[in-house]
Amino acid sequence: MQFDKQNSYEISDLIHSSKTAILPVGAVEAHGPHLPLGTDNLLAERLSNLLAKRVNGLVLPTLPYGQVWSLRDFPGSLTLSNQTLTQMIVEIGESLFQQGIRLFVIVNGHYGNAVALKEAARVLYDSFQKNRVMCMFYPGTKKIIEEVRESPSVHDSYFHACELETSYMLYLANEYVDMSRAIQDIPEIPAETDISPTPWSQFTKSAVLGDATKATYDKGEKIILAALDEMERMILKAKDDLGC
Amino acid sequence: MQFDKQNSYEISDLIHSSKTAILPVGAVEAHGPHLPLGTDNLLAERLSNLLAKRVNGLVLPTLPYGQVWSLRDFPGSLTLSNQTLTQMIVEIGESLFQQGIRLFVIVNGHYGNAVALKEAARVLYDSFQKNRVMCMFYPGTKKIIEEVRESPSVHDSYFHACELETSYMLYLANEYVDMSRAIQDIPEIPAETDISPTPWSQFTKSAVLGDATKATYDKGEKIILAALDEMERMILKAKDDLGC
Amino acid sequence: MQFDKQNSYEISDLIHSSKTAILPVGAVEAHGPHLPLGTDNLLAERLSNLLAKRVNGLVLPTLPYGQVWSLRDFPGSLTLSNQTLTQMIVEIGESLFQQGIRLFVIVNGHYGNAVALKEAARVLYDSFQKNRVMCMFYPGTKKIIEEVRESPSVHDSYFHACELETSYMLYLANEYVDMSRAIQDIPEIPAETDISPTPWSQFTKSAVLGDATKATYDKGEKIILAALDEMERMILKAKDDLGC
Amino acid sequence: MQFDKQNSYEISDLIHSSKTAILPVGAVEAHGPHLPLGTDNLLAERLSNLLAKRVNGLVLPTLPYGQVWSLRDFPGSLTLSNQTLTQMIVEIGESLFQQGIRLFVIVNGHYGNAVALKEAARVLYDSFQKNRVMCMFYPGTKKIIEEVRESPSVHDSYFHACELETSYMLYLANEYVDMSRAIQDIPEIPAETDISPTPWSQFTKSAVLGDATKATYDKGEKIILAALDEMERMILKAKDDLGC
Amino acid sequence: MQFDKQNSYEISDLIHSSKTAILPVGAVEAHGPHLPLGTDNLLAERLSNLLAKRVNGLVLPTLPYGQVWSLRDFPGSLTLSNQTLTQMIVEIGESLFQQGIRLFVIVNGHYGNAVALKEAARVLYDSFQKNRVMCMFYPGTKKIIEEVRESPSVHDSYFHACELETSYMLYLANEYVDMSRAIQDIPEIPAETDISPTPWSQFTKSAVLGDATKATYDKGEKIILAALDEMERMILKAKDDLGC
Amino acid sequence: MQFDKQNSYEISDLIHSSKTAILPVGAVEAHGPHLPLGTDNLLAERLSNLLAKRVNGLVLPTLPYGQVWSLRDFPGSLTLSNQTLTQMIVEIGESLFQQGIRLFVIVNGHYGNAVALKEAARVLYDSFQKNRVMCMFYPGTKKIIEEVRESPSVHDSYFHACELETSYMLYLANEYVDMSRAIQDIPEIPAETDISPTPWSQFTKSAVLGDATKATYDKGEKIILAALDEMERMILKAKDDLGC
Repeated sequence: MQFDKQNSYEISDLIHSSKTAILPVGAVEAHGPHLPLGTDNLLAERLSNLLAKRVNGLVLPTLPYGQVWSLRDFPGSLTLSNQTLTQMIVEIGESLFQQGIRLFVIVNGHYGNAVALKEAARVLYDSFQKNRVMCMFYPGTKKIIEEVRESPSVHDSYFHACELETSYMLYLANEYVDMSRAIQDIPEIPAETDISPTPWSQFTKSAVLGDATKATYDKGEKIILAALDEMERMILKAKDDLGC
Repeated sequence: MQFDKQNSYEISDLIHSSKTAILPVGAVEAHGPHLPLGTDNLLAERLSNLLAKRVNGLVLPTLPYGQVWSLRDFPGSLTLSNQTLTQMIVEIGESLFQQGIRLFVIVNGHYGNAVALKEAARVLYDSFQKNRVMCMFYPGTKKIIEEVRESPSVHDSYFHACELETSYMLYLANEYVDMSRAIQDIPEIPAETDISPTPWSQFTKSAVLGDATKATYDKGEKIILAALDEMERMILKAKDDLGC
Repeated sequence: MQFDKQNSYEISDLIHSSKTAILPVGAVEAHGPHLPLGTDNLLAERLSNLLAKRVNGLVLPTLPYGQVWSLRDFPGSLTLSNQTLTQMIVEIGESLFQQGIRLFVIVNGHYGNAVALKEAARVLYDSFQKNRVMCMFYPGTKKIIEEVRESPSVHDSYFHACELETSYMLYLANEYVDMSRAIQDIPEIPAETDISPTPWSQFTKSAVLGDATKATYDKGEKIILAALDEMERMILKAKDDLGC
Repeated sequence: MQFDKQNSYEISDLIHSSKTAILPVGAVEAHGPHLPLGTDNLLAERLSNLLAKRVNGLVLPTLPYGQVWSLRDFPGSLTLSNQTLTQMIVEIGESLFQQGIRLFVIVNGHYGNAVALKEAARVLYDSFQKNRVMCMFYPGTKKIIEEVRESPSVHDSYFHACELETSYMLYLANEYVDMSRAIQDIPEIPAETDISPTPWSQFTKSAVLGDATKATYDKGEKIILAALDEMERMILKAKDDLGC
Repeated sequence: MQFDKQNSYEISDLIHSSKTAILPVGAVEAHGPHLPLGTDNLLAERLSNLLAKRVNGLVLPTLPYGQVWSLRDFPGSLTLSNQTLTQMIVEIGESLFQQGIRLFVIVNGHYGNAVALKEAARVLYDSFQKNRVMCMFYPGTKKIIEEVRESPSVHDSYFHACELETSYMLYLANEYVDMSRAIQDIPEIPAETDISPTPWSQFTKSAVLGDATKATYDKGEKIILAALDEMERMILKAKDDLGC
Repeated sequence: MQFDKQNSYEISDLIHSSKTAILPVGAVEAHGPHLPLGTDNLLAERLSNLLAKRVNGLVLPTLPYGQVWSLRDFPGSLTLSNQTLTQMIVEIGESLFQQGIRLFVIVNGHYGNAVALKEAARVLYDSFQKNRVMCMFYPGTKKIIEEVRESPSVHDSYFHACELETSYMLYLANEYVDMSRAIQDIPEIPAETDISPTPWSQFTKSAVLGDATKATYDKGEKIILAALDEMERMILKAKDDLGC
């Protein structure tokens, strides 16, 4: 159910029966030769749509700009400051809660947004303690990822345009993937990268962090379904907690 | 040409040959019983696509949240502050100009955004005097509107969910219009409304400001084509001025 | 009745009987060879004084600095940011409402201030819903202007140092007008001016937008009296609404 | 020479020959039964006019709102935050320096403004190191005050509506003083007042801090002339330093 | 009693019985050849410890960074903006008051911090009117200083690395003073220094403002004990006022 | 070498020979019954001192206040906002770089500070690209931790007052640990904690996240030495990169 495709005469009832708004947040960012700049937007949006069906959620229009510090120097990347992204989310949340939403689920498709989203969630927490904000970035997928991945992870926290993310795209937005151009480009990421501001251009030319050629629809399906299961579980529990 | 559907290997050449980015900006806002909450997003987005073809522009993903003060109390409306919207546009503009864009065209589908967009354009003007920002809200349509409209205008500056806007939707996003629910609701807008903060709920229950039943595809086409002609003219002139 | 010429022993009673504070806001800005830089301050201040007599208002000291983006490059222009001007008005308003004022009337003499004043009024609206802020820029004068003006308007929204504004000065501040230096300088203002940040220096050397030689005391009187009538009407109605 | 009474055709030459702008800054604040709320504005303005004649300065319109924390609870007091006042001064200074002014003299009539003015001066110092900002609050008067005052000082740093300030008014703005209502009201100001935020209402009902009945034109003249001598000396020295 | 050396199981009772938190605030700043850069931190910290014993206060960890505008160009000086220092103090105060502290005493070792601390105290005053913030900078020492000092004061408001401050260090932090390097360096501070932003490098090379060779333990003891007496008196009175 | 214990006559040479400033940053936060509130300050400070000896660094005074959102409701916790902490670090960094420091090493003792520190490092990166900021939180300890720990980790990212942190204290600040009060308190941390703002009071009463009774000096030594080795390696490499 798309929030913005409803009209103002019916939306109140829908808000009342759902109580749950889902906001896809992505970014415009370099994703190598085989994936489009809008990869994170496509993933967040389609994941949100699948999630909405499971939890009777209302999907908001995708916020397609994110914080892209690490790849900001790559062609096509557009970036917001953390501060502006946080403020944007806070204000959207305030509107939603004033409209009667009780549970504001942010489906994040871009790891770099996590800090700004968490800050926004905390600001809203202080003002609306009877409601809840949840920021989801593929939760509950650790185990299944360990099972299905064939190429090694290049970093403890993030992945990018690699076997994993390309698999997600094959499952969720196949028509935007050009597997004929998928490459393997496994960077050596120095430990200093986590310690000191380091544009990724210092260790990759392609913006692919891993082996995209190993991506398959099947892997994507398995991981995404695991994520959806976990998101569904957490949302249903939250609605139960909130009594809605 | 969708900016975010390109990949980072090809976008540089496209930026170099186009120099022109087009950002649709809309809002989620009550538009009566016959139009969806996302009307302004649909209009901005589709108008941008038509414009891009005429001027070899790159269309950015739609920024679907806007400043909705006047109708913020209506079901489904979501609002940003002017300050946050301005900052968002400034940061997107900075990224674009750093990427090589010379002409940043904002196609605005929501009148309430105009102040924030203008402020952003001025901030960017001071930092990037060799580039240009243009904020378009159906320019060059005054004459044709006078010719085609049948119902009276309710206000000098704005129109909303009425004969005009509904006609635009019939031409640009027909599948989201339910003409069977179109209504006529002509408010008396007191002069004080322009003088003192006045939520529109004080003079309308429907959020329709005029006679939506008078809307036709044909009227929409005439006005939108006039707007496109004027936007095209101004963009080509600007590119000429900028030498790009 | 000048607010600042009263003392603190008597002002409480005056506030209690008036409930209405009038703040003149102007600017220091180029106005051609025949009008002083402080034209907008003189107009706002004297209009406020006339208005105060009609509505038993208390006139505050003139805020003589405004937002002068368009003419900031002209000799003598001084400019504030919108943000600072807004904040200034908000804080003055907060003090006034804490002092017992119910109706805060801003008489604006400079079109460029309108955006900042409106933003301030909205901020105050959210904090003081039982009081009212009104931003007046020659309301109710459209019809009389159409009747008396001889030279064409150069722009839909603004006028500057022209037949109109010079007439206002002849009526309100005659001693500061040097009609022997009044000029006619009718610019061609390109449509792009409303679309993209455009210093007025791009289309005028004089800062006169029209034909100042057509100005007369009589025209000024007619328009100003119409404005005063409308301001008086709106203020009395507002006081009635507020029950004060 | 009033800056705002000049026109834009002549102001450039005047700026070029003067290089010095003088901004009176005051406040609207309770000053007891014998002095008006606008006392600090009157003092700053008239002192500025006298100073301008001595140093060929251009007097700007008075900024009539200041930071009035200590007396904000008294009838008629209006207050700005330090932050807003600072920003206001910074922006006026930026405009002045861009117009060719080299020496920006702020004549302050209200002690409570001093912190905000100093902060503004420091901000401008960092951006315009070849120019100068000077914030004057009756400099060079310590000795003459010791000679002429008859009633004791109630505080090391400030004075208010007392023998001193009333004398200044008798000399500079006699027509606004009602000596028949002058009172003696010498408060005991506890030491804690300088240590912890303390509204003056905790130790005075009248807002008079001392003995206003002792004020005379003659005392005012002596002190004000001493201040003018010192201001003149410092300005001429500064102009010499700046080579203008 | 050091706040941070307690554990979370016992701190509640201690807060409940004390109600008083003492925050030493200093700076890292040039203090001549005989005193360390951290002089103001040492003074604030040790004075706080002595004070705490007298008033059953809980001493917080020293905030060792301050506003050092005047000496920022000297080797070793580190500076914060007033705004950041204010915000820091406000947030610490909010935490303390939420934890049950009623009286927040700031023992300031650096004159340059005074403005920022006062602003913070006012912000907290508006939010927590039942609690109290006190900013102490050697209160109650005027008379004893007049008695003991041998070298003249160089400025009405401040002293630095001179007979006074060096004496304080001899009494409170003797092990960090190298009297063999103490110098006499009495600057002529022009009156303009109080009027216009003036780095101290314009009148001193040593950062010593006076005659440090005149410093003695005995003078330090007398002045510091006077300060402690006054601080104790004011705190006990404040606790009495607050009923705690 | 303590930065603040040097004087301004010698610090320039020391800065020139070291080029490296080390800032300990901690927090005041509940750490269970066996560790003091200032645990993170003690750890950061003493680790910094050990590090300084290895890399010829200058240790700055500890910044003892941090961002303590998760435990802010526990007795004794004091918290800053991310924004204020970031700004504080930025301004300290600006001062250091203006003083000639090339490498600004932040030794962080409190996980909750990480986001604010990273943001500050990025701000400084944009202004001082020839210098470097490094934010260290026990780097290079993953492997040794896996070897020595006996009790399980309760969370992927953080640890608190547990076997690990208590061991660090036993090695670095033994005199502040009361092992007789060490407890085992292994919480079940729901997955939602990483998704939605969750005060830790929802899953722990003690603020101990694990088994503090398993802590030993020996474990602390092994892990801290591994951290020191890695910090030393990264700093020497950075100095080499910077050519200093």
